[in-house]
Amino acid sequence: MMKILIVNGPNLNLLGKREPAIYGNGSFEDYLETLRRDVGARGVELGYFQSNVEGELIDAIQQADGLYDGIVLNAGGYTHTSVAIADAVGAVETPVVEVHVSSILAREEFRHVSLLAPKCAGSIMGFGLKSYRLGVESFLI
Amino acid sequence: MMKILIVNGPNLNLLGKREPAIYGNGSFEDYLETLRRDVGARGVELGYFQSNVEGELIDAIQQADGLYDGIVLNAGGYTHTSVAIADAVGAVETPVVEVHVSSILAREEFRHVSLLAPKCAGSIMGFGLKSYRLGVESFLI
Amino acid sequence: MMKILIVNGPNLNLLGKREPAIYGNGSFEDYLETLRRDVGARGVELGYFQSNVEGELIDAIQQADGLYDGIVLNAGGYTHTSVAIADAVGAVETPVVEVHVSSILAREEFRHVSLLAPKCAGSIMGFGLKSYRLGVESFLI
Amino acid sequence: MMKILIVNGPNLNLLGKREPAIYGNGSFEDYLETLRRDVGARGVELGYFQSNVEGELIDAIQQADGLYDGIVLNAGGYTHTSVAIADAVGAVETPVVEVHVSSILAREEFRHVSLLAPKCAGSIMGFGLKSYRLGVESFLI
Amino acid sequence: MMKILIVNGPNLNLLGKREPAIYGNGSFEDYLETLRRDVGARGVELGYFQSNVEGELIDAIQQADGLYDGIVLNAGGYTHTSVAIADAVGAVETPVVEVHVSSILAREEFRHVSLLAPKCAGSIMGFGLKSYRLGVESFLI
Amino acid sequence: MMKILIVNGPNLNLLGKREPAIYGNGSFEDYLETLRRDVGARGVELGYFQSNVEGELIDAIQQADGLYDGIVLNAGGYTHTSVAIADAVGAVETPVVEVHVSSILAREEFRHVSLLAPKCAGSIMGFGLKSYRLGVESFLI
Amino acid sequence: MMKILIVNGPNLNLLGKREPAIYGNGSFEDYLETLRRDVGARGVELGYFQSNVEGELIDAIQQADGLYDGIVLNAGGYTHTSVAIADAVGAVETPVVEVHVSSILAREEFRHVSLLAPKCAGSIMGFGLKSYRLGVESFLI
Amino acid sequence: MMKILIVNGPNLNLLGKREPAIYGNGSFEDYLETLRRDVGARGVELGYFQSNVEGELIDAIQQADGLYDGIVLNAGGYTHTSVAIADAVGAVETPVVEVHVSSILAREEFRHVSLLAPKCAGSIMGFGLKSYRLGVESFLI
Amino acid sequence: MMKILIVNGPNLNLLGKREPAIYGNGSFEDYLETLRRDVGARGVELGYFQSNVEGELIDAIQQADGLYDGIVLNAGGYTHTSVAIADAVGAVETPVVEVHVSSILAREEFRHVSLLAPKCAGSIMGFGLKSYRLGVESFLI
Amino acid sequence: MMKILIVNGPNLNLLGKREPAIYGNGSFEDYLETLRRDVGARGVELGYFQSNVEGELIDAIQQADGLYDGIVLNAGGYTHTSVAIADAVGAVETPVVEVHVSSILAREEFRHVSLLAPKCAGSIMGFGLKSYRLGVESFLI
Amino acid sequence: MMKILIVNGPNLNLLGKREPAIYGNGSFEDYLETLRRDVGARGVELGYFQSNVEGELIDAIQQADGLYDGIVLNAGGYTHTSVAIADAVGAVETPVVEVHVSSILAREEFRHVSLLAPKCAGSIMGFGLKSYRLGVESFLI
Amino acid sequence: MMKILIVNGPNLNLLGKREPAIYGNGSFEDYLETLRRDVGARGVELGYFQSNVEGELIDAIQQADGLYDGIVLNAGGYTHTSVAIADAVGAVETPVVEVHVSSILAREEFRHVSLLAPKCAGSIMGFGLKSYRLGVESFLI
Repeated sequence: MMKILIVNGPNLNLLGKREPAIYGNGSFEDYLETLRRDVGARGVELGYFQSNVEGELIDAIQQADGLYDGIVLNAGGYTHTSVAIADAVGAVETPVVEVHVSSILAREEFRHVSLLAPKCAGSIMGFGLKSYRLGVESFLI
Repeated sequence: MMKILIVNGPNLNLLGKREPAIYGNGSFEDYLETLRRDVGARGVELGYFQSNVEGELIDAIQQADGLYDGIVLNAGGYTHTSVAIADAVGAVETPVVEVHVSSILAREEFRHVSLLAPKCAGSIMGFGLKSYRLGVESFLI
Repeated sequence: MMKILIVNGPNLNLLGKREPAIYGNGSFEDYLETLRRDVGARGVELGYFQSNVEGELIDAIQQADGLYDGIVLNAGGYTHTSVAIADAVGAVETPVVEVHVSSILAREEFRHVSLLAPKCAGSIMGFGLKSYRLGVESFLI
Repeated sequence: MMKILIVNGPNLNLLGKREPAIYGNGSFEDYLETLRRDVGARGVELGYFQSNVEGELIDAIQQADGLYDGIVLNAGGYTHTSVAIADAVGAVETPVVEVHVSSILAREEFRHVSLLAPKCAGSIMGFGLKSYRLGVESFLI
Repeated sequence: MMKILIVNGPNLNLLGKREPAIYGNGSFEDYLETLRRDVGARGVELGYFQSNVEGELIDAIQQADGLYDGIVLNAGGYTHTSVAIADAVGAVETPVVEVHVSSILAREEFRHVSLLAPKCAGSIMGFGLKSYRLGVESFLI
Repeated sequence: MMKILIVNGPNLNLLGKREPAIYGNGSFEDYLETLRRDVGARGVELGYFQSNVEGELIDAIQQADGLYDGIVLNAGGYTHTSVAIADAVGAVETPVVEVHVSSILAREEFRHVSLLAPKCAGSIMGFGLKSYRLGVESFLI
Repeated sequence: MMKILIVNGPNLNLLGKREPAIYGNGSFEDYLETLRRDVGARGVELGYFQSNVEGELIDAIQQADGLYDGIVLNAGGYTHTSVAIADAVGAVETPVVEVHVSSILAREEFRHVSLLAPKCAGSIMGFGLKSYRLGVESFLI
Repeated sequence: MMKILIVNGPNLNLLGKREPAIYGNGSFEDYLETLRRDVGARGVELGYFQSNVEGELIDAIQQADGLYDGIVLNAGGYTHTSVAIADAVGAVETPVVEVHVSSILAREEFRHVSLLAPKCAGSIMGFGLKSYRLGVESFLI
Repeated sequence: MMKILIVNGPNLNLLGKREPAIYGNGSFEDYLETLRRDVGARGVELGYFQSNVEGELIDAIQQADGLYDGIVLNAGGYTHTSVAIADAVGAVETPVVEVHVSSILAREEFRHVSLLAPKCAGSIMGFGLKSYRLGVESFLI
Repeated sequence: MMKILIVNGPNLNLLGKREPAIYGNGSFEDYLETLRRDVGARGVELGYFQSNVEGELIDAIQQADGLYDGIVLNAGGYTHTSVAIADAVGAVETPVVEVHVSSILAREEFRHVSLLAPKCAGSIMGFGLKSYRLGVESFLI
Repeated sequence: MMKILIVNGPNLNLLGKREPAIYGNGSFEDYLETLRRDVGARGVELGYFQSNVEGELIDAIQQADGLYDGIVLNAGGYTHTSVAIADAVGAVETPVVEVHVSSILAREEFRHVSLLAPKCAGSIMGFGLKSYRLGVESFLI
Repeated sequence: MMKILIVNGPNLNLLGKREPAIYGNGSFEDYLETLRRDVGARGVELGYFQSNVEGELIDAIQQADGLYDGIVLNAGGYTHTSVAIADAVGAVETPVVEVHVSSILAREEFRHVSLLAPKCAGSIMGFGLKSYRLGVESFLI
């Protein structure tokens, strides 16, 4: 049995509510349900945590250390500014994979940098919600 | 009846306590009372929220969406660093007006940039506490 | 009786003629008429000056010193490049409020800087033509 | 009958007077006469305006709008610094072609940028006085 | 039947020959064989092309257009410098997914930028050779 | 009796748990105990607060104002990004001394800047856990 | 008889195939045919070479030296990155004129610089396919 | 008999009216009178021109060419932004000496650069009104 | 018995002579005397060297190697510019602690960088003359 | 017997044909003949390869690995832009010495950086054709 | 009787020996003799000091404090790099005037900055050896 | 008989004493002895000078002018900061060759620039102590 924690940062609780033309009308919770069913059959249990508060994301990463086999992290807007989350990723032994719904390199210039990437086991971006699925797959294949 | 939420960011709870020569001895709460009286007669109800925590400001902006007709936001020091608050402003449908007590362009260089401005309906700065009043007026005139 | 001078810089004489979908078909002169009527009842007299010539804007600011109680200045493209107008604003005693129709921080990067802001009593931007009204209000409330 | 206006900016009134080894001893007026004769036979009427004053160049561009079929603009030193002229070029419907006697990209670094180019229908540089002829040709072929 | 082309850029022909401690002693060809076997059962045919020549990579991308359902591209050192490959990726209709063996954001500063990412359907980096597998999966799931 | 508050920022709750070769196996709590014993004899009472949340650090600094004679602050990753904490340090009257376990100037470039330093009474860095002791000493000698 | 070589760089072989709304459905070869007919009557023979390979463009420029009276060069994406092509242009005696279909100064920032311009006899950009015609004209008038 | 022209740029017509603690209560005209008397005895005739309009300063420099033996130029705020005035200085044969009342290198960063200096015969700054006197002296000794 | 050398760089021989309001009227020599008495009782012998010459500071650091247990270095203005002193600090085995009277991060921007810090055992700044005392303490506690 | 390969990049095939006043009338082939005679007597065999194609230079470096004892590389214009050649140099075991005819640090700013230098065994520049001789010597002495 | 010290920095002892076409064949000593004779009659005594050692220039400035009425300083190459000399100029009470033989703003970019200017009473540059005379005059008129 | 002076800058007197694993246990003096024996037989006399003082290196270069046929200069840390030494190299007629033990382009970023290189006859770096030998050879072959 493999345990993986999905951690979502600020404003990602709005996924599915805004820009339905792109993401459909389903919430992230709906997507998560599908994802859980898909990988559950392969013996993977998915945890989930979301917060708009930078420090609570750090708390979650620290607390997952040793309890989970991997973390799939979409830190949202904190990706580009948070030395503190990057330090947390670097401090825990559980590998962390960074995912983004859109390609941060194809958006505004201030989103081009990821402070987290150098500390992550890998980065996946630009595949829409499918980025989460690929992030989970990276621990399985 | 129009409903407007004033959101104050970090250290703005100290307004009126520091630098009394500039702002007088009244707290922001005192100022708010006067402001409420002035615009109340014109059918405006003012909500108020203050927090030093970046993520709680995001929570407040998200929760005000649909409940308020407008938000007057002074994000304090987060103005210059928070991609996450800017994303929240861009995600909600309620228009947000940015205000600052002093002119951010007349202070230290790291305050010259506002990550929020491109997502806001407008920006008002430099008028002291009167900036809040002008922010509220921008929804009325 | 309060006297306020509105000073418009380069290409602002075209307001109302271009992009009617945004600003309507009325010229700035039409808008000015309405504005004069609105604030006239409150004892405010509005002067108006427009020029495409940087130096004539400086002349106007210098000559208004002492004759007007306030200046509402939209320096257009000179906002981003004119040390000389900024020096004029800094040299006169009549307070100058900077206004912009759109938010300069939400447009091309070369418009993000305002050389005038550090010398102005305050800045208002992004409210369309309403920015002028808010600029005038800032002297009244 | 096609009408094209040539607009020359600061110091271009000195063409032909300085550096005769490069441009010959004829003034720009002499060159203009030849140019008029050459394209006149093809039904083109050339207007001409020169000023050292930035705002007067803006006036000329605004006033040519609708009266001319095209503008050939050499804004000289204002090319690199004038947001205001660029705004004027962007505001008029008559297409504007930017020309330079020398290649601005082959000179001092502060001349490498053209604020006008993004608003112009095209740019031609480096061909000496022939750049004006090519600018006029661009409206004919 | 789905057809996917893997395109490898400069020095990637040395994979497996250098740094065996990291990548093992198998060549990329060995890895490719395994990958073909894994995804072949799911109806995917993998094409493969490698060149050290920037223009030949452009040729390959152009020629794959319409013949393949997707391209998995590791442009190696050209990732950071080639406007021309980025233009090719932007010009073809076949979606291109960018992969990297290591995380480019965790290496020397000149590798932090990817000119290709803004034109790609998505980016995957840092998972070792497994990045190729995830790139192929992105077309399947 | 002198009262000094030690404020630790994000991830510093992991001190002693990670990299034991450097810091030993004792937690910060262990170190704090020794420190309290050492300075207690000299009439100093040490308070302690740790949080991963930026805004809670601001709360702590604001609430210590007037209650403590000095604050020893290690803001961790927020040192390099938090205008808001710097504003808090500048707003309180209790002097704040900045400490760092390692020398921020000897690490990655994004750690070279301290937004807090200009507002602090002094900075001490690079001495390992001993930096805290020196920070406390700075109020005593 | 005057001989002029047109040299097209990477992805320009796709002209007419992509974005037909802008360039029509004709290929560059079609355009070239018209161009040859137009200038052929005036005694001009046009050579043509296209390659996606940077070094083959250098070969072509070197080999044209002395055989052609002029080169019209659109180096595409290599315009912004190739010191080597610029060196080739500077090394040959045949004058080289740089052309671009769109204005490089009106596109993404990384396209604003032309390494070739300082070595070219002139630059023409922004006139669509007509830029080639103007490039040829520059050798005739 | 030597003829020298003093050219003053924007806002320098306010000298003596603002900041009397520094410059005294006399206007520049008063200072000029003294200066004329001092150097008149040594056979020097001083011309004077002031304008707030950049282009009129260019006109003045062009028209002084050949009529004056030297120009003492204080271009005020245009010093830091005007490529056009610098071009005018470079185009005339009469030597131009740049003067500034204060030291531009000791003020705001945007004043640190002088576009004029590379074209001037020399620069003198920081001596108050005495800078003009030293500028005139530079032609005499 | 522990031996510590204090090395003072350029202009620090003027300490106590300038800005007496801040540092008092005593010279550094007076301060040193007090310091020697304070730490002498704890078995510490303090050496002292001052020079305005960069190379003599390097000589002093090299010669102290092996003879002293620690060096307390205030390199003054060389802190920000001297690669050579930094190399000396890195080459010797005796640990060097950097001290500054004021906080270099709170002064002019060119003082924000310390080339020495990455090579030093630690840095202490902003405590006035007390910084020296803390520097010595860092070797004792 | 020692085997050394000289690899010349773009436009170096023109050496001796251009700028004869500097390099004489002999081609690089002539120089190579002399060089071969000089070092042949000392048991050194010189291979030679030139290409204008970046990828072919990479091919040549890869293929020389193990067959040659050293490579003397003048990558011409690719020196400043080619991450890919630098990667090739870093991937092979045969040591590579970088040479340049002129000093790249004394020419245009874009030539000041060498991406190759950090991967090379050493760099020699500025000695004219003698740089190649010194490059070969570096393997012999 | 007024006493002024001329301080010359590195390589200025070679004045008159190099580039005689510009400065003539006389040494600075010869020039100094003339200068002494010219101003001696007006009651000025000129001291002189030259050194190539940065720290000895600092020594000289410190020792002149109180003994001289003014210092004319040409710090040569240290002008652009020496925080330490700037600190010395700022520390002494005797006013220091900065002079340069050529205009530092018209030479290589690294010479454009003067660290000394903000601390000097004034700056004079570009007048050849006459700059020294003007520097002395600035104390007399 | 050819005379060559080797000039070593700051900290190079420690060569052979630090990092013996790299340079062996011999001092630079030992290496110099071998070098003298090797080239002495070919009629070369080697002078030697070392100082940690920037100005004394300038003195040495000036005094060697005319007495030596060439200078081999390793300016150590001053390479990256000394405009003054670069000016000295540019002022003397004796050619100066710059050498470095390691490749400055492969170390910290602040070492990547050499202010000396543009003034030197050539640069050699990265060959360990053998760089000196190659520097001497450059005068002989």
